[in-house]
Amino acid sequence: MYKIVLLRHGESVWNRENRFTGWTDVDLTEKGSEEARAAGELLKAHEFAFDRAFTSRLKRAIKTLHIVLETLDQLWIPVESSWRLNERHYGALQGLNKAETAAQYGEDQVLVWRRSYDVPPPALAEDDPRLEKDDPRYWDLPKSDFPRTECLKDTVARFVPYWETVIVPRILAGERILIAAHGNSLRALIKYLDNVSDEEIVGVNIPTAQPLVYELDANCRPVKHYYLADEETIRAQQAAVAAQGRAK
Amino acid sequence: MYKIVLLRHGESVWNRENRFTGWTDVDLTEKGSEEARAAGELLKAHEFAFDRAFTSRLKRAIKTLHIVLETLDQLWIPVESSWRLNERHYGALQGLNKAETAAQYGEDQVLVWRRSYDVPPPALAEDDPRLEKDDPRYWDLPKSDFPRTECLKDTVARFVPYWETVIVPRILAGERILIAAHGNSLRALIKYLDNVSDEEIVGVNIPTAQPLVYELDANCRPVKHYYLADEETIRAQQAAVAAQGRAK
Repeated sequence: MYKIVLLRHGESVWNRENRFTGWTDVDLTEKGSEEARAAGELLKAHEFAFDRAFTSRLKRAIKTLHIVLETLDQLWIPVESSWRLNERHYGALQGLNKAETAAQYGEDQVLVWRRSYDVPPPALAEDDPRLEKDDPRYWDLPKSDFPRTECLKDTVARFVPYWETVIVPRILAGERILIAAHGNSLRALIKYLDNVSDEEIVGVNIPTAQPLVYELDANCRPVKHYYLADEETIRAQQAAVAAQGRAK
Repeated sequence: MYKIVLLRHGESVWNRENRFTGWTDVDLTEKGSEEARAAGELLKAHEFAFDRAFTSRLKRAIKTLHIVLETLDQLWIPVESSWRLNERHYGALQGLNKAETAAQYGEDQVLVWRRSYDVPPPALAEDDPRLEKDDPRYWDLPKSDFPRTECLKDTVARFVPYWETVIVPRILAGERILIAAHGNSLRALIKYLDNVSDEEIVGVNIPTAQPLVYELDANCRPVKHYYLADEETIRAQQAAVAAQGRAK
């Protein structure tokens, strides 16, 4: 039996401003850094230690990871970053305020874009400056495959091969793994792991910087999962995430 | 022609307290973090960017690296850490104040321990709690090889194989490399690269958090090297490092 920890990054500047972020590389807020430290303290109190960590190419996840590892006095463990763990690409919505978008397109449409499994938001135009396909951080992502928008199904399709070919072998080798990523890339993994239906995944909300433990069997299939924080804290945070798409 | 950057960590708590540190995992001071940020700004002003970084298993080097990478907006590059880049092991002197040690053993003896090429300080006893051979960060270092003290020659002997087998292939592949390490592990590399004599290496002092550029030829042999900061700044810092072993 194996145990891994999933961690969404702490509050980012655009979380605070209630904007669609996607692949935009926004920083953590001071609160986000504090949340990360608290996550590290919680993991430490539960005597977690890790042999390897995986993260995205985006600083809000990388910095959350570094803060957690520093709190655990484990800055020295190997860290691998991949664009496959990046947040879902939000297409032309990237940078827009969620409440304003809801006022303009309607809450229902925003909920469809935010949570439906296979409806992507409008794509970025080929010449949109928000399309970062020449950014050197994506050196290992063929330009022709660079996403201009994604639905959650697309995020599942690019995360799962990395899970299967890179992460699972490490788990099977007995390494204790921490994955520091994003709300929707973690939802993508959870959908795959727990075989959540396309309908049910809409209701799954992951709070920022709350360690989520998955216990896995000998085949790396989930046996159970739980947050380390108490239920009330988690429920309040999940409700706040769910409410972000309201017009007001 | 290739260009790499060597960087000693910023001021650590024991640099400030003038103690022998070696493999003791002490943190950066606030000043050390600021020095690291300044190093990042200097590299940025000179338009440096990196494809990969190497560091030790000690947090003062890792945190210096993270601060520099954050300043360069390059937190996403791959980082590899190895005990082979750790500071020289200072044996039984680890934790002792340099000036007090000089008062006790004489300045000459301390200079021999600090700077001679092949005279190691007294070794840690097998049961000394400062011997961290069970620390999980050294999982890839056989316990029988764990150092109980080192002279610079020993540090050269363990750093050079890593340079030759891990770092050089990356340079030859065209990657722009940053090495964030320690005063004596970098002196070890420099001795090897520049073929510095056993006598001359005594006078080589590396200031904290000052980017040191090495230009290498097609065989990864040095053509020239220089600090990015102005000469006066470097000379003042080098003099301060050299003065640390005085009794008062």
